[in-house]
Amino acid sequence: MALEKAIEALRRELGPQNVITTPEELICYSYDATADLPEGRPDVVVTPENTEQVVKVVKIARQFRLPVYPRGSGTNLSGGTVPLKGGIVLATVKMNRILEIDPANLTATVQPGVIIQELNNAVAPYGLIYPPDPGTVATATMGGSVAECSGGLRGLKYGVTRNYVMGLEVVLANGEVLRCGGKTVKNVTGYDLVRLFTGSEGTLGIITEIIVRLIPAPPARETMLAGFSCLADAGNAVTQIIEHKIIPATLEIMDRVTVEVVESYARIGLPTDVAALLLIEVDGLPEVVKAEAETVKKIVTQNNGWIKTAENEAQRENLLAARRAALPALARVKPTTILEDATVPRSKITDMLLALEEIAKKYNILIGTFGHAGDGNLHPTILADARDEEEMNRVRAAVEEIFRVAISLGGTLTGEHGIGLAKKRFLPWEMGETGVWVLKQIKKALDPDNLLNPGKIVDLTQEERN
Amino acid sequence: MALEKAIEALRRELGPQNVITTPEELICYSYDATADLPEGRPDVVVTPENTEQVVKVVKIARQFRLPVYPRGSGTNLSGGTVPLKGGIVLATVKMNRILEIDPANLTATVQPGVIIQELNNAVAPYGLIYPPDPGTVATATMGGSVAECSGGLRGLKYGVTRNYVMGLEVVLANGEVLRCGGKTVKNVTGYDLVRLFTGSEGTLGIITEIIVRLIPAPPARETMLAGFSCLADAGNAVTQIIEHKIIPATLEIMDRVTVEVVESYARIGLPTDVAALLLIEVDGLPEVVKAEAETVKKIVTQNNGWIKTAENEAQRENLLAARRAALPALARVKPTTILEDATVPRSKITDMLLALEEIAKKYNILIGTFGHAGDGNLHPTILADARDEEEMNRVRAAVEEIFRVAISLGGTLTGEHGIGLAKKRFLPWEMGETGVWVLKQIKKALDPDNLLNPGKIVDLTQEERN
Repeated sequence: MALEKAIEALRRELGPQNVITTPEELICYSYDATADLPEGRPDVVVTPENTEQVVKVVKIARQFRLPVYPRGSGTNLSGGTVPLKGGIVLATVKMNRILEIDPANLTATVQPGVIIQELNNAVAPYGLIYPPDPGTVATATMGGSVAECSGGLRGLKYGVTRNYVMGLEVVLANGEVLRCGGKTVKNVTGYDLVRLFTGSEGTLGIITEIIVRLIPAPPARETMLAGFSCLADAGNAVTQIIEHKIIPATLEIMDRVTVEVVESYARIGLPTDVAALLLIEVDGLPEVVKAEAETVKKIVTQNNGWIKTAENEAQRENLLAARRAALPALARVKPTTILEDATVPRSKITDMLLALEEIAKKYNILIGTFGHAGDGNLHPTILADARDEEEMNRVRAAVEEIFRVAISLGGTLTGEHGIGLAKKRFLPWEMGETGVWVLKQIKKALDPDNLLNPGKIVDLTQEERN
Repeated sequence: MALEKAIEALRRELGPQNVITTPEELICYSYDATADLPEGRPDVVVTPENTEQVVKVVKIARQFRLPVYPRGSGTNLSGGTVPLKGGIVLATVKMNRILEIDPANLTATVQPGVIIQELNNAVAPYGLIYPPDPGTVATATMGGSVAECSGGLRGLKYGVTRNYVMGLEVVLANGEVLRCGGKTVKNVTGYDLVRLFTGSEGTLGIITEIIVRLIPAPPARETMLAGFSCLADAGNAVTQIIEHKIIPATLEIMDRVTVEVVESYARIGLPTDVAALLLIEVDGLPEVVKAEAETVKKIVTQNNGWIKTAENEAQRENLLAARRAALPALARVKPTTILEDATVPRSKITDMLLALEEIAKKYNILIGTFGHAGDGNLHPTILADARDEEEMNRVRAAVEEIFRVAISLGGTLTGEHGIGLAKKRFLPWEMGETGVWVLKQIKKALDPDNLLNPGKIVDLTQEERN
């Protein structure tokens, strides 16, 4: 009854075209790209067209005590958008305008529903790029990637989303609109709210406008493929490249399992007689690119690898496509794909690669490992079948061990996917009970009724909610 | 009586050598580098030697309800370290060890009392630099600069402190020790606590250990001095340099007032027949430096300026010394130096320069303007005499107008100095009441008894404290 009244109020305030309640459509919003998680059917999905309508949704949600789950394209990999407790999914799909491109200040202002690639297409004529590029760059939204603080293939040289967000408009749980940051390169007014909301996974506020920093597109680049018959050699090459003070734009690894699967899927001529491939791209001014590429080649050779350069744009696209095909190719092998992003300091990348091999053996599971080797941000991907409960128990034990190893190496549970639902119970391993307490204090301070994306990152007990 | 007991407890836990109570010494901790602010005498100053002793100080402070004011070298410019309400000043002077330099991961781990320049000296043999360099780099501490999120002369190209802090150890108001972040380039576990504590001005926790990112030292650089007979030409040159996608390491301005004062102070042969000087340094690989310097020279000439290059290291040092002498030179002219850091988007730098000229005329005050033009981060410096109340009233009105103009141009109250005590009342102008509410909620969530640096950034009312 209360729910019907809430839906009625939503229809009145947003118009019926922005309120979805048919069961077959609601199903589409009950899960995201994350495997092996519970689903949750929302009671209603809304598609507000502007900030005012987002405010109205939040106010109606407060009035009827319904949770609100902000959602972009649902590409996240930590269960961040699953509407666990019913309520309202707020899809930003209709807030998809690029509001301004400001070449003088090297900024763009966008609504949350803009697709990352669309922003890059729009700024390209100005000779500019927006560097953060998660693997899902062609489908993921700016709002979602800011809320998750996405990483991507260029993180090593160019940093992650938090390094590019300069200002935000956020609708708070109390329905008020906060604007923080702006177009100034420097801003230390008050606490760093821009960075607090970036990566807050929709639990502290709903992002309705984003000012991002753009950078000049690098004028030249060289893309190389290196092969190694020993995994440790590949890991050591990665470490030595960084030690030589070369920061490639891209420094990606694919292990034997991944290479074989990608080649059988995409047939792009990858050599499959390797323990690992590295995809390396250096960029910048032509002279810099040439010098850096020379050094990279020397290091690869010294580590018993071979290396070749993409001779033209088609060959380059081919190599990048191979890397981007890693996840979909692996996902074809078995029905359930558990993609992790435990991350270690760069110098520990070889240790982590070898530990992953050991873990796969120990639990008798298939792990394909690829990812951002230069960041220490690997994506060990476990290929399993969710219907095989015995196997899934081994998988879950292996995941736990991956996290334990990463943390023991000075690493983190998640380099770029977020905690969401999937990693919540591991949080104290990294942050301690003190860290979890701090997160809960902040959540309660800004969303005392636990309305915004409840059950993500931290749980508030019933007691704490009152 | 309670105070005596607290001091006794501090002596017992820290040793008498770490507890200062003599009045003549306490006076030294009653102010910082900020002008025109109230002072406050602390009841006691402590110099803990390690994190455990910091925990003990916080626990004793809680027990006796004494405020704790963390303090590095006191070089801040917003009154951030003034112990307004008595209590305990916690000086980090004895926690001054560089704990680790890790060239493989390009990180350093330091205690808060390490001087910024000492860190740079220590990493130089590895070919690395720690880029943030506030003007007080030779005296300011790492702890203080992280707490304030300092900027500096290299902010344009290399960013500010928040871009280099990777991990923190923090003693919270409840006496617990939080560790967040680490040595991984990517980390999205929980909210971004590293960035929340960076720039929190000692109000949310006491920083006891810092992991920072280092970068390879640029192998080449070219340092140039450009002169303009019209202020707007200088501003336009700055804007056009950025528009040409050149991001100099340093792009500093000094206006006529500053140039004259610096030359009469330091006698380094600066030309004084100019409306403004620009100090420009480009760095990177030699080929890049050469190309960028050529473009810079062209732009300066096109904007009716002259430009010359430092021919050797001595000439370069001379130019940098001139810029660093700006504040001390201006401070000699009159007894009271009010240094502001209102910041605007880069494209508005000419508007701001002209507005500052107008404001000086309107209020009949002397303003010397210098600062980080490339950032839009100017330092209009008002030269006055605090004993002349009539003049000070005009000064305060001018300061308010500077803030109003900066905010109306899409700028911020503070680019790099912080809010502290000095700008607290202007906070709603930039953040709105909603923003101030968010700051207070966070402060109350982590320091409900308002023990840590109370009265800075936001005030909690008595009611809110209970």
